[in-house]
Amino acid sequence: MRSVEEHRAAVLSLVSPLPPVSVGLSESLGRVLAADIAAAVDLPGFDNSAMDGYAVRAADLAGAAPGSPVVVEVDGDIPAGDTRHHELRPGAAMRIMTGAPMPAGADAVVPVEESDGGVERATLTLAPAVGRHVRRQGEDVRSGDVVLRAGTRVTPGRLALLAAANVPDVLVAPRPRVHVLSTGDELVPVGGHLEHGRIVDSNGAMLAALVRAGGGELVGVGHLDDDPGAWTGLFDVDDSGTDLYLTTGGVSMGAYDTVKEVLSRTGGVEFTKVAMRPGMPQGAGVVGPRRTPIITLPGNPVSSFVSFHVFVLPALRALAGLDPAAGATDAVAAQGWSSVPGKVELTRVVLDGDGARPSGGQGSHMLGALADATHLAVVDAATTEVRQGDPVRLIPLVGQD
Amino acid sequence: MRSVEEHRAAVLSLVSPLPPVSVGLSESLGRVLAADIAAAVDLPGFDNSAMDGYAVRAADLAGAAPGSPVVVEVDGDIPAGDTRHHELRPGAAMRIMTGAPMPAGADAVVPVEESDGGVERATLTLAPAVGRHVRRQGEDVRSGDVVLRAGTRVTPGRLALLAAANVPDVLVAPRPRVHVLSTGDELVPVGGHLEHGRIVDSNGAMLAALVRAGGGELVGVGHLDDDPGAWTGLFDVDDSGTDLYLTTGGVSMGAYDTVKEVLSRTGGVEFTKVAMRPGMPQGAGVVGPRRTPIITLPGNPVSSFVSFHVFVLPALRALAGLDPAAGATDAVAAQGWSSVPGKVELTRVVLDGDGARPSGGQGSHMLGALADATHLAVVDAATTEVRQGDPVRLIPLVGQD
Repeated sequence: MRSVEEHRAAVLSLVSPLPPVSVGLSESLGRVLAADIAAAVDLPGFDNSAMDGYAVRAADLAGAAPGSPVVVEVDGDIPAGDTRHHELRPGAAMRIMTGAPMPAGADAVVPVEESDGGVERATLTLAPAVGRHVRRQGEDVRSGDVVLRAGTRVTPGRLALLAAANVPDVLVAPRPRVHVLSTGDELVPVGGHLEHGRIVDSNGAMLAALVRAGGGELVGVGHLDDDPGAWTGLFDVDDSGTDLYLTTGGVSMGAYDTVKEVLSRTGGVEFTKVAMRPGMPQGAGVVGPRRTPIITLPGNPVSSFVSFHVFVLPALRALAGLDPAAGATDAVAAQGWSSVPGKVELTRVVLDGDGARPSGGQGSHMLGALADATHLAVVDAATTEVRQGDPVRLIPLVGQD
Repeated sequence: MRSVEEHRAAVLSLVSPLPPVSVGLSESLGRVLAADIAAAVDLPGFDNSAMDGYAVRAADLAGAAPGSPVVVEVDGDIPAGDTRHHELRPGAAMRIMTGAPMPAGADAVVPVEESDGGVERATLTLAPAVGRHVRRQGEDVRSGDVVLRAGTRVTPGRLALLAAANVPDVLVAPRPRVHVLSTGDELVPVGGHLEHGRIVDSNGAMLAALVRAGGGELVGVGHLDDDPGAWTGLFDVDDSGTDLYLTTGGVSMGAYDTVKEVLSRTGGVEFTKVAMRPGMPQGAGVVGPRRTPIITLPGNPVSSFVSFHVFVLPALRALAGLDPAAGATDAVAAQGWSSVPGKVELTRVVLDGDGARPSGGQGSHMLGALADATHLAVVDAATTEVRQGDPVRLIPLVGQD
């Protein structure tokens, strides 16, 4: 029986990074940067006023106060967006708006609240320090500075920084294109009529959601019956639009495990048992003329969900050019639970301020408990009892936000 | 000067909840449920086998063990998806696959590993307890049970539960349609040439991203110069496709504050100072023939970003029929910082395992620090010093995941 690490390594050996893609800034929200980004301009781009008021030479206003105001000539207005080059006459002031460029010679701003608001002549009641209410060119960011590093996810705040830094396009990690195939005669589309013995095809919808939440692009969701003929020609077409196939079901020891039967014959896919619970029956390999990677997941919904996080998500990250292992965190167990000996147990847990606790029934068919889980706790093969307060390694579930 | 609470109440008085919308399950990922959802079927839908093996009557195998096997007749196979009704003959067994329906009369499953794998006659080496390896109908979820509550966000795991519960469509909170207008002669589109005194229009791109991350649908992003004529007729058209207008800039005390000048004349919009930093100049009201809500944000990018979280996000949530106040959390200060007296200070902070700490320069033009922030710390007007270890109230920034 393979270890989890061995099977993950086998899966990762099948995939190579896809090239990054360039997207416009407005399309970059939520994407992961594939290169460091440097500012194209200083921020601020020029010395400017932090207040609506009067641009002055601080030396001209020594001693100004409410009881001893200083009166200055006002030589004009500088609105925000003014592209003229102004020079401040000694002893004079200019009205200036928030964000407007400081005139040459001025070194401080007196807020309008410290004045009589005069337009031709103003009475000022404040002696500002040099630099007061002036934002200096480049004090936030210098042109050429790296403002965001490769591997960073673009949030609204980071997008604002990129916009202000005058960066219209960015290189981001690609979204691997994934084709999902659920298998099994027993499956009925969601909302369909359930005869005795039939179940809803929840794996197709679930894996489609996991692929999207995990940074992939869904190029197809299909279903195949347990008839080897249904597979004829499936991978013989040009599959240049698919970077990864995922199947669910048909990989166990049952007499009707068609995925295993059909794909074993191709010679490109290896089926194995992995020392984990849930999710023991696994397979991976390549199919079709372009040797496209395929990962065959077990059919139990919970097994499939867990296997996605343990094997498929690292593969999606590797395809996107990202660190496959990123994301795991550590916490403590908020309560104890028992674990199967000899296998890695992936316990569905809820993490809150007290730590991690199992989210409910842990059967591989138990979707009710899965719906509340936030993480998978990785309990190693040698551990049979997790005790309250023990450290636990957690894999965050995708799409929890 | 208004308090933050007073202005937020004024904003919320302008909006009414929009009706929920029905979406197909695959479109529901990331949406918020607008109604409780009940399972349409039991989960599991019928008693079924948890293993590949033999369905048996436990009483027939009393004493079976590796040293004392019991031989049974095998009456046939039950594959997963079998819709026939089988009845198990006393003293016999049926081969059964994982997930296949238990035959009537059977009460346990012997895994194939505890057998010789026989097809017509099988040698079994285990005496199972009644119910062993049988998943009982409804043990996870009962038909009619509420499986997810209104207000819950749909994750991949929850989507899997809804699929398995045979729920093809769900009612979700609507996405309010938002039109963003940035204003100011000084603004140049991202990537454009910056003459002296000009800056990039980062607010348009930033607010577009915030609206999308905050659950809204962006119906337009425009820019208006500081010319009252540019506004002529803007709101006279039928704006039935817009639920909320957002503007940035032009609301301060400057001589060129066109938004304030134009919208004050309509009589429907009120401009005010709010006792907060950043973000003091604010406005809100209604425009156009349908009295569409409008919120006018200040032009400083950081002020605009903060104001979005404090006023616009609650309005978007109220429009979506959700609790406007949800989401705030508590933490401790990982380091001390000072705060302005007499105003609520909204400090951009990074929250990690040690607590919350300011993310860098807090100037209202400082986007570099904003890009790293994860939360806004709400420091009340009476507090001038936050000390290390003090409790702090945090508003999470949208789109951080």
